[in-house]
Amino acid sequence: MLSDLEIAQQATMKPITEIAKSIGILEDELDFYGKYMAKIDLNILERLKDRPIGKFISVTAITPTPLGEGKTVTALGLGQGLAKIGKKVINTNRQPSKGPTFGIKGGAAGGGYSQVLPMENINLHFTGDVHAVETAHNLCAAAIDNHISHGNTLGIDPVNVTWRYCQDLNSRALRDIVIGLGGAVNGYPRQTGFDITVATETMAILGLATDIKDLRKRFGRTVVGFTYDGKPVTAEDLKVAGAMTVLMKEALKPNLVQTTENTPVITHAGPFANVAFGNNSVVADRIALRLADYVVTESGFGADIGFEKLIDVKCRQSGLKVDCAVVVASVRALKMHGGGFLLKPGQKYANVKEKAETENLPALEKGCENLAKCISIAKTFNIPVVVSINRFTSDT
Amino acid sequence: MLSDLEIAQQATMKPITEIAKSIGILEDELDFYGKYMAKIDLNILERLKDRPIGKFISVTAITPTPLGEGKTVTALGLGQGLAKIGKKVINTNRQPSKGPTFGIKGGAAGGGYSQVLPMENINLHFTGDVHAVETAHNLCAAAIDNHISHGNTLGIDPVNVTWRYCQDLNSRALRDIVIGLGGAVNGYPRQTGFDITVATETMAILGLATDIKDLRKRFGRTVVGFTYDGKPVTAEDLKVAGAMTVLMKEALKPNLVQTTENTPVITHAGPFANVAFGNNSVVADRIALRLADYVVTESGFGADIGFEKLIDVKCRQSGLKVDCAVVVASVRALKMHGGGFLLKPGQKYANVKEKAETENLPALEKGCENLAKCISIAKTFNIPVVVSINRFTSDT
Amino acid sequence: MLSDLEIAQQATMKPITEIAKSIGILEDELDFYGKYMAKIDLNILERLKDRPIGKFISVTAITPTPLGEGKTVTALGLGQGLAKIGKKVINTNRQPSKGPTFGIKGGAAGGGYSQVLPMENINLHFTGDVHAVETAHNLCAAAIDNHISHGNTLGIDPVNVTWRYCQDLNSRALRDIVIGLGGAVNGYPRQTGFDITVATETMAILGLATDIKDLRKRFGRTVVGFTYDGKPVTAEDLKVAGAMTVLMKEALKPNLVQTTENTPVITHAGPFANVAFGNNSVVADRIALRLADYVVTESGFGADIGFEKLIDVKCRQSGLKVDCAVVVASVRALKMHGGGFLLKPGQKYANVKEKAETENLPALEKGCENLAKCISIAKTFNIPVVVSINRFTSDT
Amino acid sequence: MLSDLEIAQQATMKPITEIAKSIGILEDELDFYGKYMAKIDLNILERLKDRPIGKFISVTAITPTPLGEGKTVTALGLGQGLAKIGKKVINTNRQPSKGPTFGIKGGAAGGGYSQVLPMENINLHFTGDVHAVETAHNLCAAAIDNHISHGNTLGIDPVNVTWRYCQDLNSRALRDIVIGLGGAVNGYPRQTGFDITVATETMAILGLATDIKDLRKRFGRTVVGFTYDGKPVTAEDLKVAGAMTVLMKEALKPNLVQTTENTPVITHAGPFANVAFGNNSVVADRIALRLADYVVTESGFGADIGFEKLIDVKCRQSGLKVDCAVVVASVRALKMHGGGFLLKPGQKYANVKEKAETENLPALEKGCENLAKCISIAKTFNIPVVVSINRFTSDT
Repeated sequence: MLSDLEIAQQATMKPITEIAKSIGILEDELDFYGKYMAKIDLNILERLKDRPIGKFISVTAITPTPLGEGKTVTALGLGQGLAKIGKKVINTNRQPSKGPTFGIKGGAAGGGYSQVLPMENINLHFTGDVHAVETAHNLCAAAIDNHISHGNTLGIDPVNVTWRYCQDLNSRALRDIVIGLGGAVNGYPRQTGFDITVATETMAILGLATDIKDLRKRFGRTVVGFTYDGKPVTAEDLKVAGAMTVLMKEALKPNLVQTTENTPVITHAGPFANVAFGNNSVVADRIALRLADYVVTESGFGADIGFEKLIDVKCRQSGLKVDCAVVVASVRALKMHGGGFLLKPGQKYANVKEKAETENLPALEKGCENLAKCISIAKTFNIPVVVSINRFTSDT
Repeated sequence: MLSDLEIAQQATMKPITEIAKSIGILEDELDFYGKYMAKIDLNILERLKDRPIGKFISVTAITPTPLGEGKTVTALGLGQGLAKIGKKVINTNRQPSKGPTFGIKGGAAGGGYSQVLPMENINLHFTGDVHAVETAHNLCAAAIDNHISHGNTLGIDPVNVTWRYCQDLNSRALRDIVIGLGGAVNGYPRQTGFDITVATETMAILGLATDIKDLRKRFGRTVVGFTYDGKPVTAEDLKVAGAMTVLMKEALKPNLVQTTENTPVITHAGPFANVAFGNNSVVADRIALRLADYVVTESGFGADIGFEKLIDVKCRQSGLKVDCAVVVASVRALKMHGGGFLLKPGQKYANVKEKAETENLPALEKGCENLAKCISIAKTFNIPVVVSINRFTSDT
Repeated sequence: MLSDLEIAQQATMKPITEIAKSIGILEDELDFYGKYMAKIDLNILERLKDRPIGKFISVTAITPTPLGEGKTVTALGLGQGLAKIGKKVINTNRQPSKGPTFGIKGGAAGGGYSQVLPMENINLHFTGDVHAVETAHNLCAAAIDNHISHGNTLGIDPVNVTWRYCQDLNSRALRDIVIGLGGAVNGYPRQTGFDITVATETMAILGLATDIKDLRKRFGRTVVGFTYDGKPVTAEDLKVAGAMTVLMKEALKPNLVQTTENTPVITHAGPFANVAFGNNSVVADRIALRLADYVVTESGFGADIGFEKLIDVKCRQSGLKVDCAVVVASVRALKMHGGGFLLKPGQKYANVKEKAETENLPALEKGCENLAKCISIAKTFNIPVVVSINRFTSDT
Repeated sequence: MLSDLEIAQQATMKPITEIAKSIGILEDELDFYGKYMAKIDLNILERLKDRPIGKFISVTAITPTPLGEGKTVTALGLGQGLAKIGKKVINTNRQPSKGPTFGIKGGAAGGGYSQVLPMENINLHFTGDVHAVETAHNLCAAAIDNHISHGNTLGIDPVNVTWRYCQDLNSRALRDIVIGLGGAVNGYPRQTGFDITVATETMAILGLATDIKDLRKRFGRTVVGFTYDGKPVTAEDLKVAGAMTVLMKEALKPNLVQTTENTPVITHAGPFANVAFGNNSVVADRIALRLADYVVTESGFGADIGFEKLIDVKCRQSGLKVDCAVVVASVRALKMHGGGFLLKPGQKYANVKEKAETENLPALEKGCENLAKCISIAKTFNIPVVVSINRFTSDT
């Protein structure tokens, strides 16, 4: 059996211009990043404003386990399948973070014959969006320290700053740090830390902003800390919201790429589901819904987190509506939820392989309670639910 | 009179494909970043290996003052002039750092009618090279902390780590910090700090590497700290040199842009002159010298730093040879060197304007000693010198 | 009505030699600290080893409130009363800490006509015992850092050191600190902090040690941290247990003082009840029980903490036996325990005065549950209990 | 030959009451600390105010070397000698610090047959003066942090606090620290450190104060840091000068002890010569000069530091006058000053023993330049000088 990497390397990518053409994007509406990646100008929304809106399908899952249930592969596969039967379809998804994936997994761009390409670029710098988020976020963080250091006219309380620095790498040593040492020339000592870039407010804002003006406004009203009197201080107060917006100008444009079967994918923004809303950007979905009849998106973590946030945060703020929810489950994961075995993050699958792959109907049945709950969450919002069992050859 | 920004915005850029074509770069040898920037594949060197090498002209200056002597504008103007009289010419230069320029000056991409375009992109993310340097550098820094934290089999002495973190922003608060707080889960507390990305060893290595293998080797042998026994620890020992190289794969390709008069410029790498060798990359010059009859480069700071390092570091390691040196001087700067007035970095020009623009022949004469010394430095290397006086309308 | 301070200042102290004589301590067995304080040599125990042991009465209280229930005043009053009816009696108690009392209350040496004198000395340096504890404790702390810094042959894990520094002052700023900054010459950075001296293991050891050899042994086996392999490191391993003992040689001798009615008090050791065992020293009680027919001691905080620790920690380790327990309660405190009002530490009594001093029988009745529970604790150990209501003129 | 420790232990001390009586101190003017140490009440100065003042002799030395020149032993020997020929004489000197001496040398209380007793007590807690200095000093340090933390009405700039914490132990790890971590409840992070107690301003003030009121005033005007506006902040501003004075009330009384030959010594205050004025307290000398015909004091380090400070700081502020200076030199030290060999602090004498004990007249002659200079310093102040060669059996 070929590995994910081998499949990705054997796949023949089409020039991104062809992919764009196939869904009706004009060449003028694209900025190329190499031959297989392009950013889509937001002006396209003006041109397409009278086009009808496609069906919006969200792929989510049961409560996730370290095994992975196969959300991404199901979402991409669904897009590929719809394309195969002649439907005009676009997949939208989040871009991966180097933080948790560097050197551990192959990234977060699907697997098998349902991957997003060019995989290596997407897993590394891609079109620079994460770097832009990082720079904009840190510009604001640096502005806080510089402001405190140079007279502090806003009266920012150094022990009440909530905005931290960020980095797109997993460095636990930077989580809890003291900065501003070395005397008055380096400012006021302060306990702070670095978050993973995708876990920042700036990344969340990128995901929710509807256009450059909205991005500017959202940055402006972001609270970064509090004054000695307990009043909130915003990025606007620090006069950095404009500069943050300039740094994010290109990052706001969604990125067009393709699957291993050359169907179109728009990969844009990567807010973490545990701290942010765990879904791709609003602008990506909006553009996709004007271009295609079916848009398949993916809601990070399980239905209990990512899907609920899709509806309550992303859709509520943007006016998007979900037409159908797909809940992905695997027999292994259901068994684990039913108490058949326990695998913690970082532990080896080999340790539980036998239990995970041996028939255990009572555990499976008990695990289905989780599935049932996840279905009921979608039903709460009056959205039709399809359950997708991600079948493995080793399933029992 | 138009401002630099107005001139830049009024200039009509040609598509980068046209610029590439004009100097004989094939479209296959380019990766596009939007319409006006492209990276040049290093494979071009193999194709052109039998082409003769052009003349290599370095523009440097007298000892710099806060006034700016006009090195960049002279270098670009020289390129534009040679192009105007029909010569095949390419300018090569460093890319600017957001660190010292953000919000202070308009960047470091020339001025007036001799600017590099698209200015705004070059001053912000450009093609992501600085981000790649930052990520690769910090990957190594994080690896040091992770290694110490997880058993420290190399025996790295936490108080003898020389490799610091970096960021492409000017944040004094991050210069002297303590990391690894919060208990054993976050590793071992350590006093370190963030340098500006362009001042890192990683940026210097990007500037000197001749190809991807050389880049890999240079990363491998970089010393990052010392063991408890005082023995050096390298990035190779930490097993991160390969990952650093992967992260820098695209960054190693030089960036093709253009001047306000549509002449070709290769802008690549940005090592600071005060801590590194202060010149653009070796690969940029090598490619340019195979493509053009004249290559005009720029050596950061004055002849006493940047030019000397061009010869003693960059040329010595790469085999490049300089055919001519241009030493730029301004009457104002010579007056200041002669003691006519004093302007410190950060002070306003208005305070010294009168003195700076009033005739003062004794100061000018005394200041010429600096010019003479700078000329003699170039002569030491047996290189012909041309002095260029950057004339202002206010000169006396 | 006179204030506590006025009563203390009006009281006529007798020379400490007279107090000593009255209970049969020889002058040779004393070291004087000024005219009214003396340390008692432990050799006295050898001389008195055949004397019968007196009755041992412990005064404790219901669960304490910020109002103070009057434990100390009751204990001292009981001693004074027994003396008045001709009994040979000694009070034993802990010495106060400057940490929580400096400038806030008048100390912790009783009140009204039942105070320990010389109050001011006892509340400040007294005979230097707390200073000795502090120095011995910090000697060990410094030894840990010096050991890690100079080769660390024991392999002490800097993030797994449990022994902290201490100071007899309330400085929150020293609770969570990073030490060892400034480069290799100052050792390895480490997150640690300062505890209040009376809350240290060293103070607890002083309270429990039976003689100088036992003190030495207890210091020797104290765990101060763990090695990289997770093995415990003791003060013995660090070779500081001997020096700590030398520093504590004088501190181990109990201090003889007197009440406002010139009855004898032995004030020695001050372990906090919330972190240590909250009772005075074993040696003080042992000496007192050989000299007097009745020894009245005091068990910090309520019966649920201090008294329980007296039995389960102090008596179990030393072989002492309690003959009678006195549980002190005040009507106000019972009302508060019954929900009649709420007063948090640091809040002003004036705010609740009205409620506290107004009749509220349901609250009083409900509050008596606390009293009943405290009585039952003493009964668990088969010790007779006397309840003492500390009556106020404002009681209802 | 007996060691210093053996001599000290074989010496028969007289009760301190006898020593006091021999120089005319009344028992009422003493506070006893055990049998062999007593504090002298400052009221004695009022009783003796009409007594004539004795001769004031200062023993100092050539520039000190790690070998020790024998200042203390010479000063004590001079006192013992004067006593032997029937003169009424008192030695005054500083008390040693545990910081540099703990476990390294036998203390700083002389040597051979000229030691101060009870040596062990003096080298450990003595009468608690150093502890009192430490507590008073840290009370002020804690007040600074508490003030900044609770509203900072004085506007103290946290990066411009000059008053540090102190400890009477040598712990390099505490020299450069960050405090106030752990969130707002623990105040504002600040880079500070611990000095050795004897090196503090508080110790220097103890040495210079003439009475309790002067002590209070000196504490009040001590600058502890600066406001955001650059204005000085004093202990008075912090309202801690009074509490510091209370904590130092007993410490201000000089300590009476004796030499190995039972002659009286007043050991009081211990300011370091490198950071403070390096001489014992003004009150000790004042009392001694009213009680004796000859007072022999000692001026720390060499004539170039300690003696010069005795005249320019201690005598200038107190009105004391020096009648005679003794400059101690050893042949070994003169040889070293003359370049005969080099011994750095911490190095072993064995390494240089041969060179140090071999005849080397040129080096000796050259080294005498140092002696000549030290003599000339005393002459500058018109004070007669006696040179004392501290002769060793190994001298050549």
